[in-house]
Amino acid sequence: MSTIHTINCKACFAHGEKDIRVEQRQLQYGDNDVLVKVDCGGICGSDIHYYQHGRAGMSILKHPMVVGHEFVGIISYVPENSALKVGQRVAVNPSQPCNHCEYCLQGKQNLCSTMRFMGSAQFDPHVNGGFSEYVVVSEQQCVRYEGSVAPRIMAFSEPLAVAIHAVNVAGSLVGKKVLVIGAGPIGCLIAAAARSAGAAEIIASDVSDRCLELAKAMGATRVLNPQHADSVAPFTANRGYFDVVFEASGNAGAIVSTVSLTRPGGTVVQVGMGASNVDYPVMAMLVKEINWRGSFRFVDEFATAAQWLQDGRINPLPLLSGEYPPEKIEAAINIAADKTLSSKVQITF
Amino acid sequence: MSTIHTINCKACFAHGEKDIRVEQRQLQYGDNDVLVKVDCGGICGSDIHYYQHGRAGMSILKHPMVVGHEFVGIISYVPENSALKVGQRVAVNPSQPCNHCEYCLQGKQNLCSTMRFMGSAQFDPHVNGGFSEYVVVSEQQCVRYEGSVAPRIMAFSEPLAVAIHAVNVAGSLVGKKVLVIGAGPIGCLIAAAARSAGAAEIIASDVSDRCLELAKAMGATRVLNPQHADSVAPFTANRGYFDVVFEASGNAGAIVSTVSLTRPGGTVVQVGMGASNVDYPVMAMLVKEINWRGSFRFVDEFATAAQWLQDGRINPLPLLSGEYPPEKIEAAINIAADKTLSSKVQITF
Amino acid sequence: MSTIHTINCKACFAHGEKDIRVEQRQLQYGDNDVLVKVDCGGICGSDIHYYQHGRAGMSILKHPMVVGHEFVGIISYVPENSALKVGQRVAVNPSQPCNHCEYCLQGKQNLCSTMRFMGSAQFDPHVNGGFSEYVVVSEQQCVRYEGSVAPRIMAFSEPLAVAIHAVNVAGSLVGKKVLVIGAGPIGCLIAAAARSAGAAEIIASDVSDRCLELAKAMGATRVLNPQHADSVAPFTANRGYFDVVFEASGNAGAIVSTVSLTRPGGTVVQVGMGASNVDYPVMAMLVKEINWRGSFRFVDEFATAAQWLQDGRINPLPLLSGEYPPEKIEAAINIAADKTLSSKVQITF
Amino acid sequence: MSTIHTINCKACFAHGEKDIRVEQRQLQYGDNDVLVKVDCGGICGSDIHYYQHGRAGMSILKHPMVVGHEFVGIISYVPENSALKVGQRVAVNPSQPCNHCEYCLQGKQNLCSTMRFMGSAQFDPHVNGGFSEYVVVSEQQCVRYEGSVAPRIMAFSEPLAVAIHAVNVAGSLVGKKVLVIGAGPIGCLIAAAARSAGAAEIIASDVSDRCLELAKAMGATRVLNPQHADSVAPFTANRGYFDVVFEASGNAGAIVSTVSLTRPGGTVVQVGMGASNVDYPVMAMLVKEINWRGSFRFVDEFATAAQWLQDGRINPLPLLSGEYPPEKIEAAINIAADKTLSSKVQITF
Repeated sequence: MSTIHTINCKACFAHGEKDIRVEQRQLQYGDNDVLVKVDCGGICGSDIHYYQHGRAGMSILKHPMVVGHEFVGIISYVPENSALKVGQRVAVNPSQPCNHCEYCLQGKQNLCSTMRFMGSAQFDPHVNGGFSEYVVVSEQQCVRYEGSVAPRIMAFSEPLAVAIHAVNVAGSLVGKKVLVIGAGPIGCLIAAAARSAGAAEIIASDVSDRCLELAKAMGATRVLNPQHADSVAPFTANRGYFDVVFEASGNAGAIVSTVSLTRPGGTVVQVGMGASNVDYPVMAMLVKEINWRGSFRFVDEFATAAQWLQDGRINPLPLLSGEYPPEKIEAAINIAADKTLSSKVQITF
Repeated sequence: MSTIHTINCKACFAHGEKDIRVEQRQLQYGDNDVLVKVDCGGICGSDIHYYQHGRAGMSILKHPMVVGHEFVGIISYVPENSALKVGQRVAVNPSQPCNHCEYCLQGKQNLCSTMRFMGSAQFDPHVNGGFSEYVVVSEQQCVRYEGSVAPRIMAFSEPLAVAIHAVNVAGSLVGKKVLVIGAGPIGCLIAAAARSAGAAEIIASDVSDRCLELAKAMGATRVLNPQHADSVAPFTANRGYFDVVFEASGNAGAIVSTVSLTRPGGTVVQVGMGASNVDYPVMAMLVKEINWRGSFRFVDEFATAAQWLQDGRINPLPLLSGEYPPEKIEAAINIAADKTLSSKVQITF
Repeated sequence: MSTIHTINCKACFAHGEKDIRVEQRQLQYGDNDVLVKVDCGGICGSDIHYYQHGRAGMSILKHPMVVGHEFVGIISYVPENSALKVGQRVAVNPSQPCNHCEYCLQGKQNLCSTMRFMGSAQFDPHVNGGFSEYVVVSEQQCVRYEGSVAPRIMAFSEPLAVAIHAVNVAGSLVGKKVLVIGAGPIGCLIAAAARSAGAAEIIASDVSDRCLELAKAMGATRVLNPQHADSVAPFTANRGYFDVVFEASGNAGAIVSTVSLTRPGGTVVQVGMGASNVDYPVMAMLVKEINWRGSFRFVDEFATAAQWLQDGRINPLPLLSGEYPPEKIEAAINIAADKTLSSKVQITF
Repeated sequence: MSTIHTINCKACFAHGEKDIRVEQRQLQYGDNDVLVKVDCGGICGSDIHYYQHGRAGMSILKHPMVVGHEFVGIISYVPENSALKVGQRVAVNPSQPCNHCEYCLQGKQNLCSTMRFMGSAQFDPHVNGGFSEYVVVSEQQCVRYEGSVAPRIMAFSEPLAVAIHAVNVAGSLVGKKVLVIGAGPIGCLIAAAARSAGAAEIIASDVSDRCLELAKAMGATRVLNPQHADSVAPFTANRGYFDVVFEASGNAGAIVSTVSLTRPGGTVVQVGMGASNVDYPVMAMLVKEINWRGSFRFVDEFATAAQWLQDGRINPLPLLSGEYPPEKIEAAINIAADKTLSSKVQITF
């Protein structure tokens, strides 16, 4: 028989469009659960969407939900005989696949039919997220890290996992010429991950010169602003320059442009969410035999992300624009949403 | 010093929109060339387009050109010491890549930057095709076959090579559930090739029940007509049924439908030419991590196609709707263009 | 609360070297189990090894075990609300991976750390097999087939699954030149599966001309007997002829010969069990960049095998040398072990 | 008509076992050739073998040959209209594939049937190498680099290309656990390349603690000396620890050990030349489905290597043990051959 423990804490609940509140909640956990006291967490695009529109893509808020899925903390309770210990710092993987469906048993846990992703309203009841003083998770979700590494660094584990998954979807990048379209947090982390995976050239493209500076700080070897005359033409000449294009903007025009920027036989990875439909030049794609692939969340890349952050191979701090207490969640989201001002914004508990 | 030989013969020249003529031509060939007396050849969609519109996609007729690129013949002259002999029957590969560019040296000859494909107006001067009593080709283009196999069978080598290349683009089909959209000659040959490559289920989809009957004759295990109520719904349930979809219709609506018909993580191969742009549901594709790939012409699949036809693994004759002499080329093209009447139509010299 | 049912039946128990007995056993099954009345089952090499040596490779008999893992039957009991029905015929997949370990969650169930394979003494207690009037299995192990197909055909599902897995390990075979070394039941089924997967040429090699005749009947396009002078030389000329070699003999000399028979850049799949160590020419393998891969059991190929047998794509009956009642198990094993006489031998209940 | 130019210079000629001489030679070059004045070059294992044994593997010295294939220089003559200019510094790719054979046209130039590799006695007449004041090469062999980078760094381009090719043979290393056996120059460069390609852990193994220190300096995250008790056991427990093992020692015992060190389903890349045959545990390899692949020279990895050296991603200088003038070639080779003293030794012109 498992004993049920309870703890009270505050958390950031999205209630609907433009309605986010810091409220008390009662958490319950059993003998086999892990209780994590949250250190801090990053605001993701989907958190912004839940606040701005009461939905993120197809996921619509039907009841209040704790947001946040990029977070780290310190272990407060573990099951007996666990390899984890109270007091250890952990990055928490928000992904909870069923591990039983046909996709999970093919090693594609990110495509799980009944995924319970923290901080997502995809299913009803929704799965509460990590912008909470405490969270209850399972042992498998916890990736330990050395206390000497700052939590604000390790809180990039989840978005970096998304970036590394996009890199894995592309196949080996060793010696490849790579374009990253969209130099927001994910695009910049893809630039960093592409460099860490051996890409020869990593060019970042964005309409914001501020974002392009960040891309350079994160590993882009060159940048281009498509609003500047003649910046794109050299890369569409001779049927396209890039072996691999990561489309991380979700912008319809950018998505369409990938066909002329990619070499015949090249690969385009769609990771940016945005336009639901685009007017796509399918014949141009056919004769160039372009390979266009979707990249959604991550599988086992979370552990790799945590390791690359911990061993210093990737320094995410150029992307960190601000840190706010949970009480300022609404202001923090508004700042995070303003791409002229900020890149990644974190909530610190 | 190479001697130049000449021969006069008749051939089918496309002059422009609705203007195709049987005319005499003078052919020249050197000591190292192969002269082939053409037995017969199939009319392809691009031949129909040159006749109907004076162009095929981006390739515009600028001067008269011999059409036809699916043809077989009998060797009439070969270089000294050639492995080929006069009197042998050969299927002629119309593909003439440069074998020097970066694509050729990566084994992607179909993406060659300066491809000279017979019967194509892609470059100027155009490359004459095979609807000619005689053609001059190189030794490497000739694939010998046994005289006991009918030329009308072997003339399917080129379109079957296109089908097998599409299968290769998809990756291994062993045990896979496959959909072929569009049951014209290429779609039906893909159904046959998918079966020969080990697909478990091969479902063909077309709006013409006549075409679906042909698909069944060619190896489809089931067929569906999307115009019939409820025919598609079972295959879009549970996030999609098919591991691999071959889009061989080029129809915009069909292309869009692939996203809901394909399983998460599945592959769509675009082989059908048609709509230049489509309103594509990119977000649905992203969250399902669909892999959409173009398939253009073929690389070394021509030899495989010739072998599968020769050893009887694939019988293409259900697709053969009619045979006409070159003098009837205009009528033959009009019949070939009417999909309510015919599938593949051949010109017999 | 699950009710426990019991049934008494006879089964073939291996007790040790040269000691196999037909004995009564009591089977227990619960409400969620499936009870299958066995129709027939094939004798595999490992069954022969348990009889001859009291062991099969590393798996040593520590207590009596029901042998047999290639079997089919008729459903005698199913859980309420099961998709299966009493009276249906099923091929039974003997593979019972844990579905929880790291290998299972990467889609490599055949490498499961705690696999419970029926009829195997790999773990202690051993897992009883299918040479029993009745067996208790799970719903997931049962693959239904049409009653119009003979059980003796469907009993080849398991060895054919092994063959198809070897084909999948090799990668796409479309248009490839393939050699199968060893024309026993597995080698012949690989020849058949390679043909069904699109191989261009399938050459079988064996020292027994009788086995080579079977290979031809199963789909080999040519055969060679390495004991005949000059039979091998044409295939080792020019640095090797074959794109893919399936080594299905386990013979040390044959394994070594794969290096000279395979083209530079080609693949060798090791599926034959036999010599534990071989004197391998590693430098020759290095400079040819040969890819040598092990192939062990199967993953999801069991369903594909059952389908290919059911739809008639592969007819295994040329391989069936004899059928015996369980009381003649010892004689049947001795006949199965004599490769001058027999290929596959089945026990019929 | 091409004019023939001549130049006299000195070079290091291997004449046979223990017989290497600095001699004058006359070089001829035509209008379309490139003349490079050599800056420096590294001594490779094959150079040592030619000196010690008059042969390197299967390649036997039949006449005097200029050794050396890891070299860089400065352009002294280029064809008119070349993109290269006199005075530019270049790393010279010693690989001269035919670019016409079936392997070249499949993108596998390293397996070319008539490769002319500089400094190799594989064919007769042998192909002279780069330990010469001047060399004549083609434009395609020259990879330009910035004059601000030291030639002694760029002279590692060729062995680094070998290392990157081994990495590419292994497939994507992102997040993988990697072992490198043998911490000589190639092993250490593989450790560096594996790190640059995203490996999570890179463990180097060698019997020399001195070499292990170099491996650490080059990017190994941990090292192990198999001569120290219990150093290997943790990595063979649980059926093996490593996703990918690079065997770079060529030692027979080390090659055999890869089977127990590699996880089920893992990959072993054989890059180390040494033992021609090994007593290989094929059954253990089969049941673990290990994938063992040869890696020979490189394809397009030379350009990647030059870039990684030039942009500072890999610093090879910890491996540089000494620099000698050509007159000291014999002493330099003897030092290079003594692994207790040196790693890479260069000849400076």
